Amino acid sequence: MARNIQSLERAAAMLRLLAGGERRLGLSDIASTLGLAKGTAHGILRTLQQEGFVEQDDASGRYQLGAELLRLGNSYLDVHELRARALVWTDDLARSSGESVYLGVLHQQGVLIVHHVFRPDDSRQVLEVGAMHPLHSTALGKVLSAYDPVAHSEVAEAERKAFTPRTVTGASAFEDVLDLTRARGWGSDVEETWEGVASVAAPIHDRRRLPVGAVGITGAVERVCADGELRSDLVAAVRDCARAVSRDLGALRRF
Amino acid sequence: MARNIQSLERAAAMLRLLAGGERRLGLSDIASTLGLAKGTAHGILRTLQQEGFVEQDDASGRYQLGAELLRLGNSYLDVHELRARALVWTDDLARSSGESVYLGVLHQQGVLIVHHVFRPDDSRQVLEVGAMHPLHSTALGKVLSAYDPVAHSEVAEAERKAFTPRTVTGASAFEDVLDLTRARGWGSDVEETWEGVASVAAPIHDRRRLPVGAVGITGAVERVCADGELRSDLVAAVRDCARAVSRDLGALRRF
Repeated sequence: MARNIQSLERAAAMLRLLAGGERRLGLSDIASTLGLAKGTAHGILRTLQQEGFVEQDDASGRYQLGAELLRLGNSYLDVHELRARALVWTDDLARSSGESVYLGVLHQQGVLIVHHVFRPDDSRQVLEVGAMHPLHSTALGKVLSAYDPVAHSEVAEAERKAFTPRTVTGASAFEDVLDLTRARGWGSDVEETWEGVASVAAPIHDRRRLPVGAVGITGAVERVCADGELRSDLVAAVRDCARAVSRDLGALRRF
Repeated sequence: MARNIQSLERAAAMLRLLAGGERRLGLSDIASTLGLAKGTAHGILRTLQQEGFVEQDDASGRYQLGAELLRLGNSYLDVHELRARALVWTDDLARSSGESVYLGVLHQQGVLIVHHVFRPDDSRQVLEVGAMHPLHSTALGKVLSAYDPVAHSEVAEAERKAFTPRTVTGASAFEDVLDLTRARGWGSDVEETWEGVASVAAPIHDRRRLPVGAVGITGAVERVCADGELRSDLVAAVRDCARAVSRDLGALRRF
Protein backbone atom coordinates (compact mmCIF):
# COMPACT_ATOMS: atom_id res chain seq x y z
CA MET A 1 0.00 0.00 0.00
CA ALA A 2 1.32 3.42 -0.94
CA ARG A 3 2.43 5.61 1.97
CA ASN A 4 0.92 9.04 2.43
CA ILE A 5 3.12 11.90 1.34
CA GLN A 6 4.22 13.95 4.33
CA SER A 7 4.85 17.21 2.47
CA LEU A 8 1.34 17.01 1.00
CA GLU A 9 -0.21 16.44 4.40
CA ARG A 10 1.70 19.42 5.71
CA ALA A 11 0.60 21.57 2.76
CA ALA A 12 -3.03 20.60 3.39
CA ALA A 13 -2.64 21.49 7.07
CA MET A 14 -1.31 24.93 6.05
CA LEU A 15 -4.30 25.54 3.79
CA ARG A 16 -6.69 24.51 6.57
CA LEU A 17 -4.85 26.83 8.94
CA LEU A 18 -5.17 29.74 6.50
CA ALA A 19 -8.87 28.93 5.98
CA GLY A 20 -9.71 29.37 9.66
CA GLY A 21 -9.09 31.93 12.36
CA GLU A 22 -6.63 34.61 11.38
CA ARG A 23 -6.46 33.88 7.65
CA ARG A 24 -3.40 36.06 7.09
CA LEU A 25 -0.37 34.55 8.76
CA GLY A 26 3.38 35.09 8.74
CA LEU A 27 5.92 32.33 8.14
CA SER A 28 6.82 32.08 11.84
CA ASP A 29 3.17 31.71 12.92
CA ILE A 30 2.58 28.98 10.36
CA ALA A 31 5.76 27.09 11.19
CA SER A 32 5.22 27.24 14.96
CA THR A 33 1.50 26.35 14.81
CA LEU A 34 2.26 23.26 12.72
CA GLY A 35 5.45 22.37 14.62
CA LEU A 36 7.67 22.69 11.55
CA ALA A 37 11.14 24.15 11.09
CA LYS A 38 10.95 27.53 9.37
CA GLY A 39 12.95 26.29 6.37
CA THR A 40 10.60 23.34 5.89
CA ALA A 41 7.52 25.55 6.15
CA HIS A 42 9.04 28.07 3.74
CA GLY A 43 9.71 25.41 1.09
CA ILE A 44 6.10 24.25 1.21
CA LEU A 45 4.69 27.80 1.19
CA ARG A 46 6.93 28.77 -1.72
CA THR A 47 5.64 25.85 -3.78
CA LEU A 48 2.03 26.52 -2.76
CA GLN A 49 2.52 30.13 -3.80
CA GLN A 50 3.99 29.17 -7.16
CA GLU A 51 0.98 26.92 -7.80
CA GLY A 52 -1.48 29.69 -6.85
CA PHE A 53 -2.77 27.99 -3.68
CA VAL A 54 -1.46 30.73 -1.41
CA GLU A 55 -0.71 34.40 -2.00
CA GLN A 56 1.75 36.59 -0.13
CA ASP A 57 0.92 40.16 0.74
CA ASP A 58 3.71 42.39 -0.62
CA ALA A 59 3.58 44.86 2.22
CA SER A 60 3.31 42.58 5.28
CA GLY A 61 4.83 39.37 3.87
CA ARG A 62 1.89 37.47 5.35
CA TYR A 63 0.33 34.51 3.56
CA GLN A 64 -3.32 33.96 2.67
CA LEU A 65 -5.25 31.50 0.52
CA GLY A 66 -4.79 31.84 -3.26
CA ALA A 67 -7.05 32.27 -6.28
CA GLU A 68 -6.37 28.80 -7.68
CA LEU A 69 -8.51 27.37 -4.87
CA LEU A 70 -11.51 29.36 -6.10
CA ARG A 71 -10.98 28.12 -9.65
CA LEU A 72 -10.65 24.50 -8.51
CA GLY A 73 -13.65 24.82 -6.17
CA ASN A 74 -15.71 26.00 -9.12
CA SER A 75 -14.50 23.04 -11.18
CA TYR A 76 -15.53 20.74 -8.33
CA LEU A 77 -19.06 22.17 -8.60
CA ASP A 78 -19.10 21.77 -12.39
CA VAL A 79 -18.65 18.03 -12.09
CA HIS A 80 -21.01 17.63 -9.13
CA GLU A 81 -23.75 15.31 -10.35
CA LEU A 82 -26.12 15.90 -7.42
CA ARG A 83 -25.88 19.66 -7.87
CA ALA A 84 -26.43 19.45 -11.63
CA ARG A 85 -29.52 17.29 -11.16
CA ALA A 86 -30.87 19.61 -8.48
CA LEU A 87 -30.51 22.97 -10.29
CA VAL A 88 -33.96 23.13 -11.87
CA TRP A 89 -35.79 21.54 -8.94
CA THR A 90 -34.24 23.89 -6.39
CA ASP A 91 -35.10 26.90 -8.55
CA ASP A 92 -38.70 25.73 -8.64
CA LEU A 93 -38.68 25.21 -4.88
CA ALA A 94 -37.41 28.75 -4.24
CA ARG A 95 -40.11 30.11 -6.53
CA SER A 96 -42.97 28.10 -5.03
CA SER A 97 -41.91 28.59 -1.40
CA GLY A 98 -40.67 32.16 -1.70
CA GLU A 99 -37.70 31.20 0.51
CA SER A 100 -33.96 30.50 0.12
CA VAL A 101 -33.07 26.97 -0.91
CA TYR A 102 -29.90 25.15 0.16
CA LEU A 103 -28.44 21.89 -1.08
CA GLY A 104 -25.91 20.31 1.28
CA VAL A 105 -23.62 17.30 1.45
CA LEU A 106 -21.64 15.79 4.30
CA HIS A 107 -18.07 17.09 4.40
CA GLN A 108 -15.76 16.47 7.34
CA GLN A 109 -17.78 17.29 10.47
CA GLY A 110 -20.40 19.49 8.84
CA VAL A 111 -22.75 20.24 5.97
CA LEU A 112 -21.04 21.74 2.93
CA ILE A 113 -23.43 23.97 0.97
CA VAL A 114 -23.02 23.05 -2.71
CA HIS A 115 -25.95 25.06 -4.07
CA HIS A 116 -27.89 28.05 -2.83
CA VAL A 117 -30.85 29.67 -4.54
CA PHE A 118 -31.63 33.14 -3.26
CA ARG A 119 -35.04 33.98 -1.86
CA PRO A 120 -36.92 35.38 -4.88
CA ASP A 121 -37.27 38.95 -3.71
CA ASP A 122 -35.22 42.11 -4.00
CA SER A 123 -33.36 41.76 -0.72
CA ARG A 124 -29.57 41.74 -0.48
CA GLN A 125 -28.41 38.17 0.16
CA VAL A 126 -24.98 36.59 0.57
CA LEU A 127 -24.19 33.46 -1.37
CA GLU A 128 -23.29 30.58 0.93
CA VAL A 129 -21.96 28.06 -1.58
CA GLY A 130 -18.82 26.59 -0.02
CA ALA A 131 -19.88 27.50 3.51
CA MET A 132 -20.09 24.87 6.25
CA HIS A 133 -23.22 24.54 8.39
CA PRO A 134 -23.38 22.50 11.61
CA LEU A 135 -24.66 18.91 11.53
CA HIS A 136 -26.45 18.83 14.86
CA SER A 137 -28.60 21.94 14.70
CA THR A 138 -29.58 22.61 11.08
CA ALA A 139 -32.37 20.87 9.18
CA LEU A 140 -29.90 19.77 6.47
CA GLY A 141 -27.48 18.45 9.10
CA LYS A 142 -30.14 16.53 11.00
CA VAL A 143 -31.32 14.87 7.81
CA LEU A 144 -27.77 13.83 6.90
CA SER A 145 -27.14 12.60 10.47
CA ALA A 146 -30.39 10.64 10.45
CA TYR A 147 -29.83 8.90 7.12
CA ASP A 148 -26.06 8.70 6.57
CA PRO A 149 -24.18 6.45 9.03
CA VAL A 150 -20.93 8.36 8.41
CA ALA A 151 -22.62 11.66 9.27
CA HIS A 152 -24.16 9.99 12.30
CA SER A 153 -20.80 8.92 13.70
CA GLU A 154 -19.34 12.39 13.01
CA VAL A 155 -22.15 14.12 14.87
CA ALA A 156 -22.19 11.59 17.70
CA GLU A 157 -18.50 12.20 18.40
CA ALA A 158 -18.56 15.97 17.95
CA GLU A 159 -19.22 18.53 20.61
CA ARG A 160 -22.76 19.77 20.03
CA LYS A 161 -22.50 23.49 20.60
CA ALA A 162 -25.53 25.46 21.81
CA PHE A 163 -26.02 28.25 19.27
CA THR A 164 -29.32 29.35 20.81
CA PRO A 165 -31.32 28.27 23.88
CA ARG A 166 -33.26 25.90 21.57
CA THR A 167 -30.25 23.92 20.27
CA VAL A 168 -30.51 20.24 21.27
CA THR A 169 -27.13 19.29 22.73
CA GLY A 170 -27.65 16.21 24.92
CA ALA A 171 -26.74 12.84 23.39
CA SER A 172 -30.00 11.02 24.07
CA ALA A 173 -32.21 14.01 23.24
CA PHE A 174 -30.33 14.34 19.97
CA GLU A 175 -30.91 10.66 19.12
CA ASP A 176 -34.63 11.29 19.72
CA VAL A 177 -34.46 14.14 17.20
CA LEU A 178 -32.91 11.78 14.66
CA ASP A 179 -35.56 9.12 15.35
CA LEU A 180 -38.26 11.72 14.76
CA THR A 181 -36.50 12.85 11.56
CA ARG A 182 -36.48 9.30 10.20
CA ALA A 183 -40.08 8.68 11.31
CA ARG A 184 -41.34 11.82 9.54
CA GLY A 185 -38.95 11.63 6.62
CA TRP A 186 -37.82 15.24 7.07
CA GLY A 187 -35.81 17.40 9.44
CA SER A 188 -36.42 20.81 10.92
CA ASP A 189 -34.58 23.61 12.70
CA VAL A 190 -36.70 26.19 14.48
CA GLU A 191 -34.29 28.81 15.84
CA GLU A 192 -31.79 26.11 16.89
CA THR A 193 -28.91 27.57 14.84
CA TRP A 194 -29.84 31.19 14.18
CA GLU A 195 -32.32 33.27 16.18
CA GLY A 196 -35.40 34.06 14.11
CA VAL A 197 -34.60 31.55 11.38
CA ALA A 198 -36.35 28.23 10.67
CA SER A 199 -35.60 25.49 8.13
CA VAL A 200 -37.06 22.29 6.71
CA ALA A 201 -35.01 19.70 4.84
CA ALA A 202 -35.44 16.27 3.28
CA PRO A 203 -32.97 13.57 2.18
CA ILE A 204 -31.83 12.88 -1.37
CA HIS A 205 -30.93 9.31 -2.34
CA ASP A 206 -28.96 8.05 -5.32
CA ARG A 207 -29.46 5.03 -7.53
CA ARG A 208 -27.99 2.76 -4.86
CA ARG A 209 -30.56 4.28 -2.47
CA LEU A 210 -27.75 5.78 -0.40
CA PRO A 211 -28.27 9.24 1.16
CA VAL A 212 -26.07 11.59 -0.86
CA GLY A 213 -27.30 14.96 0.33
CA ALA A 214 -30.17 17.00 1.65
CA VAL A 215 -32.22 19.88 0.30
CA GLY A 216 -34.13 22.41 2.31
CA ILE A 217 -35.56 25.88 2.62
CA THR A 218 -34.58 28.48 5.19
CA GLY A 219 -36.40 31.64 6.14
CA ALA A 220 -37.77 33.89 8.84
CA VAL A 221 -39.55 31.84 11.50
CA GLU A 222 -42.62 34.09 11.11
CA ARG A 223 -42.99 33.02 7.48
CA VAL A 224 -41.85 29.39 7.64
CA CYS A 225 -43.82 28.42 10.76
CA ALA A 226 -47.48 28.73 11.66
CA ASP A 227 -48.67 28.21 15.25
CA GLY A 228 -45.15 27.15 16.26
CA GLU A 229 -45.02 24.32 13.70
CA LEU A 230 -43.37 24.16 10.29
CA ARG A 231 -45.98 24.97 7.64
CA SER A 232 -47.12 21.69 6.11
CA ASP A 233 -47.31 23.12 2.58
CA LEU A 234 -43.60 24.03 2.83
CA VAL A 235 -42.72 20.59 4.22
CA ALA A 236 -44.56 19.02 1.28
CA ALA A 237 -42.78 21.26 -1.23
CA VAL A 238 -39.35 20.40 0.22
CA ARG A 239 -40.09 16.66 0.20
CA ASP A 240 -41.40 16.87 -3.37
CA CYS A 241 -38.15 18.56 -4.40
CA ALA A 242 -36.00 15.93 -2.64
CA ARG A 243 -37.99 13.14 -4.30
CA ALA A 244 -37.68 14.76 -7.73
CA VAL A 245 -33.89 15.07 -7.41
CA SER A 246 -33.63 11.49 -6.09
CA ARG A 247 -35.69 10.30 -9.04
CA ASP A 248 -33.34 12.12 -11.43
CA LEU A 249 -30.42 10.41 -9.71
CA GLY A 250 -32.06 7.05 -10.35
CA ALA A 251 -33.16 6.31 -6.79
CA LEU A 252 -36.80 5.61 -7.52
CA ARG A 253 -36.57 3.83 -10.86
CA ARG A 254 -37.90 0.59 -9.50
CA PHE A 255 -41.31 2.05 -8.75
CA MET B 1 16.62 29.59 -0.99
CA ALA B 2 14.22 26.75 -0.33
CA ARG B 3 13.69 24.27 -3.15
CA ASN B 4 10.23 23.61 -4.47
CA ILE B 5 8.64 20.40 -3.27
CA GLN B 6 8.27 17.95 -6.14
CA SER B 7 5.38 15.93 -4.67
CA LEU B 8 3.44 19.16 -4.14
CA GLU B 9 4.03 20.28 -7.71
CA ARG B 10 2.82 16.88 -8.90
CA ALA B 11 -0.26 17.07 -6.67
CA ALA B 12 -1.07 20.53 -8.08
CA ALA B 13 -0.68 19.18 -11.62
CA MET B 14 -3.15 16.38 -10.81
CA LEU B 15 -5.72 18.86 -9.51
CA ARG B 16 -5.30 20.99 -12.64
CA LEU B 17 -5.71 17.88 -14.77
CA LEU B 18 -8.93 16.92 -12.94
CA ALA B 19 -10.21 20.51 -13.29
CA GLY B 20 -10.02 20.45 -17.09
CA GLY B 21 -11.15 18.19 -19.86
CA GLU B 22 -12.44 14.82 -18.68
CA ARG B 23 -12.68 15.62 -14.97
CA ARG B 24 -13.14 11.97 -13.97
CA LEU B 25 -9.96 10.03 -14.54
CA GLY B 26 -8.57 6.63 -13.62
CA LEU B 27 -5.19 6.09 -11.99
CA SER B 28 -3.58 4.93 -15.25
CA ASP B 29 -4.78 8.01 -17.17
CA ILE B 30 -3.47 10.34 -14.50
CA ALA B 31 -0.11 8.59 -14.20
CA SER B 32 0.48 8.42 -17.94
CA THR B 33 -0.67 12.01 -18.63
CA LEU B 34 1.73 13.35 -16.01
CA GLY B 35 4.54 10.90 -16.86
CA LEU B 36 4.57 9.32 -13.39
CA ALA B 37 4.94 5.71 -12.27
CA LYS B 38 1.59 4.31 -11.16
CA GLY B 39 2.84 3.75 -7.60
CA THR B 40 4.01 7.36 -7.33
CA ALA B 41 0.72 8.68 -8.69
CA HIS B 42 -1.25 6.44 -6.35
CA GLY B 43 0.61 7.67 -3.27
CA ILE B 44 -0.18 11.28 -4.16
CA LEU B 45 -3.82 10.55 -5.01
CA ARG B 46 -4.29 8.59 -1.79
CA THR B 47 -3.02 11.54 0.24
CA LEU B 48 -5.10 14.03 -1.75
CA GLN B 49 -8.14 11.82 -1.16
CA GLN B 50 -7.47 11.60 2.56
CA GLU B 51 -7.26 15.41 2.72
CA GLY B 52 -10.53 15.82 0.76
CA PHE B 53 -8.92 17.34 -2.34
CA VAL B 54 -9.96 14.45 -4.57
CA GLU B 55 -12.79 11.94 -4.33
CA GLN B 56 -12.91 8.47 -5.80
CA ASP B 57 -16.07 7.10 -7.36
CA ASP B 58 -16.89 3.77 -5.66
CA ALA B 59 -18.25 2.16 -8.77
CA SER B 60 -15.71 3.16 -11.44
CA GLY B 61 -12.67 3.81 -9.24
CA ARG B 62 -12.16 7.08 -11.13
CA TYR B 63 -10.93 10.21 -9.39
CA GLN B 64 -12.50 13.68 -9.41
CA LEU B 65 -11.97 16.92 -7.49
CA GLY B 66 -13.01 16.88 -3.82
CA ALA B 67 -15.26 18.97 -1.59
CA GLU B 68 -12.40 20.48 0.43
CA LEU B 69 -11.54 22.62 -2.61
CA LEU B 70 -14.99 24.22 -2.49
CA ARG B 71 -14.63 24.94 1.21
CA LEU B 72 -11.16 26.46 0.74
CA GLY B 73 -12.31 28.44 -2.32
CA ASN B 74 -15.05 29.95 -0.21
CA SER B 75 -12.53 30.83 2.49
CA TYR B 76 -10.39 32.51 -0.18
CA LEU B 77 -13.38 34.74 -1.02
CA ASP B 78 -14.04 35.52 2.65
CA VAL B 79 -10.62 37.11 3.01
CA HIS B 80 -10.68 38.87 -0.40
CA GLU B 81 -10.40 42.57 0.38
CA LEU B 82 -11.31 43.78 -3.12
CA ARG B 83 -14.44 41.64 -3.14
CA ALA B 84 -15.48 42.76 0.34
CA ARG B 85 -15.08 46.42 -0.61
CA ALA B 86 -17.02 45.91 -3.84
CA LEU B 87 -20.09 44.07 -2.48
CA VAL B 88 -22.32 47.07 -1.87
CA TRP B 89 -21.17 49.04 -4.94
CA THR B 90 -21.71 46.10 -7.32
CA ASP B 91 -25.19 45.51 -5.87
CA ASP B 92 -26.01 49.15 -6.54
CA LEU B 93 -24.61 48.88 -10.06
CA ALA B 94 -26.79 45.82 -10.84
CA ARG B 95 -29.81 47.67 -9.52
CA SER B 96 -29.18 50.89 -11.42
CA SER B 97 -28.14 49.25 -14.69
CA GLY B 98 -30.58 46.35 -14.59
CA GLU B 99 -27.76 44.06 -15.81
CA SER B 100 -25.42 41.39 -14.39
CA VAL B 101 -22.30 42.68 -12.67
CA TYR B 102 -18.97 40.86 -12.61
CA LEU B 103 -15.84 41.57 -10.60
CA GLY B 104 -12.70 39.97 -11.99
CA VAL B 105 -9.00 39.65 -11.15
CA LEU B 106 -6.05 38.41 -13.17
CA HIS B 107 -5.35 34.73 -12.50
CA GLN B 108 -2.96 32.71 -14.64
CA GLN B 109 -3.85 33.48 -18.28
CA GLY B 110 -7.38 34.75 -17.71
CA VAL B 111 -9.88 36.71 -15.66
CA LEU B 112 -11.06 34.93 -12.52
CA ILE B 113 -14.58 36.00 -11.57
CA VAL B 114 -14.55 36.69 -7.82
CA HIS B 115 -18.01 38.24 -7.54
CA HIS B 116 -21.16 38.08 -9.66
CA VAL B 117 -24.39 39.91 -8.99
CA PHE B 118 -27.34 38.52 -10.91
CA ARG B 119 -29.37 40.71 -13.24
CA PRO B 120 -32.20 41.95 -11.02
CA ASP B 121 -35.06 40.17 -12.74
CA ASP B 122 -36.76 36.81 -12.37
CA SER B 123 -34.72 34.98 -14.99
CA ARG B 124 -32.77 31.81 -14.24
CA GLN B 125 -29.07 32.66 -14.06
CA VAL B 126 -25.97 30.59 -13.36
CA LEU B 127 -23.47 31.87 -10.85
CA GLU B 128 -20.04 32.35 -12.41
CA VAL B 129 -17.90 32.94 -9.32
CA GLY B 130 -14.73 30.91 -9.80
CA ALA B 131 -15.13 30.78 -13.58
CA MET B 132 -12.34 31.95 -15.89
CA HIS B 133 -13.08 34.43 -18.70
CA PRO B 134 -10.65 35.20 -21.54
CA LEU B 135 -8.32 38.19 -21.29
CA HIS B 136 -8.30 39.23 -24.93
CA SER B 137 -11.99 39.39 -25.77
CA THR B 138 -13.93 40.37 -22.64
CA ALA B 139 -14.33 43.89 -21.30
CA LEU B 140 -12.89 42.82 -17.93
CA GLY B 141 -9.94 41.13 -19.63
CA LYS B 142 -9.16 44.10 -21.88
CA VAL B 143 -9.18 46.43 -18.89
CA LEU B 144 -6.79 44.18 -16.97
CA SER B 145 -4.56 43.79 -20.05
CA ALA B 146 -4.53 47.56 -20.61
CA TYR B 147 -3.65 48.51 -17.04
CA ASP B 148 -1.75 45.57 -15.52
CA PRO B 149 1.68 44.84 -17.07
CA VAL B 150 1.52 41.21 -15.90
CA ALA B 151 -1.84 40.71 -17.62
CA HIS B 152 -0.44 42.44 -20.68
CA SER B 153 2.44 40.02 -21.00
CA GLU B 154 0.11 37.04 -20.45
CA VAL B 155 -2.25 38.19 -23.18
CA ALA B 156 0.55 39.15 -25.55
CA GLU B 157 2.04 35.66 -25.36
CA ALA B 158 -1.24 33.74 -25.46
CA GLU B 159 -3.04 32.54 -28.54
CA ARG B 160 -5.96 34.92 -29.05
CA LYS B 161 -8.79 32.60 -30.04
CA ALA B 162 -11.61 33.90 -32.26
CA PHE B 163 -14.81 33.17 -30.33
CA THR B 164 -16.98 35.10 -32.81
CA PRO B 165 -16.29 36.90 -36.11
CA ARG B 166 -15.85 40.10 -34.08
CA THR B 167 -13.04 38.87 -31.79
CA VAL B 168 -9.86 40.90 -32.31
CA THR B 169 -7.04 38.38 -32.70
CA GLY B 170 -4.17 40.15 -34.51
CA ALA B 171 -1.30 41.43 -32.35
CA SER B 172 -1.22 45.01 -33.57
CA ALA B 173 -5.02 45.36 -33.77
CA PHE B 174 -5.19 44.12 -30.20
CA GLU B 175 -2.62 46.69 -29.04
CA ASP B 176 -4.82 49.36 -30.65
CA VAL B 177 -7.74 48.06 -28.58
CA LEU B 178 -5.66 48.40 -25.42
CA ASP B 179 -4.59 51.93 -26.41
CA LEU B 180 -8.23 52.85 -26.89
CA THR B 181 -9.11 51.26 -23.54
CA ARG B 182 -6.48 53.36 -21.76
CA ALA B 183 -7.45 56.51 -23.65
CA ARG B 184 -11.13 56.16 -22.73
CA GLY B 185 -10.54 54.69 -19.28
CA TRP B 186 -12.88 51.76 -19.90
CA GLY B 187 -13.09 48.57 -21.95
CA SER B 188 -15.86 47.03 -24.00
CA ASP B 189 -16.83 43.75 -25.61
CA VAL B 190 -19.57 43.86 -28.22
CA GLU B 191 -20.21 40.26 -29.26
CA GLU B 192 -16.49 39.47 -29.23
CA THR B 193 -16.79 36.61 -26.74
CA TRP B 194 -20.43 35.53 -26.84
CA GLU B 195 -22.87 36.19 -29.68
CA GLY B 196 -25.58 38.63 -28.61
CA VAL B 197 -23.77 39.71 -25.46
CA ALA B 198 -22.05 43.04 -24.77
CA SER B 199 -20.05 44.26 -21.76
CA VAL B 200 -18.45 47.39 -20.34
CA ALA B 201 -15.75 47.34 -17.66
CA ALA B 202 -13.50 49.77 -15.81
CA PRO B 203 -10.32 49.33 -13.76
CA ILE B 204 -10.08 49.28 -9.96
CA HIS B 205 -6.92 50.59 -8.32
CA ASP B 206 -5.64 50.07 -4.81
CA ARG B 207 -3.91 52.43 -2.39
CA ARG B 208 -0.63 52.02 -4.26
CA ARG B 209 -2.56 52.99 -7.41
CA LEU B 210 -1.92 49.55 -8.88
CA PRO B 211 -4.66 47.91 -10.99
CA VAL B 212 -6.03 45.11 -8.79
CA GLY B 213 -9.16 44.15 -10.70
CA ALA B 214 -11.93 45.24 -12.99
CA VAL B 215 -15.68 45.60 -12.62
CA GLY B 216 -18.22 45.53 -15.39
CA ILE B 217 -21.73 44.81 -16.53
CA THR B 218 -22.78 42.23 -19.10
CA GLY B 219 -26.07 41.92 -20.92
CA ALA B 220 -27.93 41.46 -24.15
CA VAL B 221 -26.44 43.66 -26.88
CA GLU B 222 -29.91 45.05 -27.61
CA ARG B 223 -30.12 46.46 -24.08
CA VAL B 224 -26.49 47.43 -23.44
CA CYS B 225 -25.88 49.13 -26.80
CA ALA B 226 -27.71 51.89 -28.65
CA ASP B 227 -26.95 52.63 -32.32
CA GLY B 228 -24.08 50.11 -32.23
CA GLU B 229 -22.31 51.89 -29.36
CA LEU B 230 -22.21 51.12 -25.66
CA ARG B 231 -24.84 53.24 -23.90
CA SER B 232 -23.06 56.17 -22.28
CA ASP B 233 -25.24 56.07 -19.15
CA LEU B 234 -24.12 52.48 -18.56
CA VAL B 235 -20.47 53.39 -19.18
CA ALA B 236 -20.80 56.19 -16.63
CA ALA B 237 -22.43 53.86 -14.07
CA VAL B 238 -19.66 51.26 -14.45
CA ARG B 239 -16.91 53.88 -14.14
CA ASP B 240 -18.63 55.38 -11.07
CA CYS B 241 -18.70 51.93 -9.49
CA ALA B 242 -15.00 51.30 -10.25
CA ARG B 243 -14.08 54.68 -8.79
CA ALA B 244 -16.14 54.06 -5.66
CA VAL B 245 -14.45 50.70 -5.03
CA SER B 246 -11.02 52.22 -5.73
CA ARG B 247 -11.76 55.00 -3.28
CA ASP B 248 -12.73 52.41 -0.64
CA LEU B 249 -9.43 50.65 -1.31
CA GLY B 250 -7.61 53.92 -0.66
CA ALA B 251 -6.62 54.70 -4.26
CA LEU B 252 -8.02 58.20 -4.41
CA ARG B 253 -7.28 59.47 -0.93
CA ARG B 254 -4.92 62.13 -2.16
CA PHE B 255 -7.67 64.01 -3.98
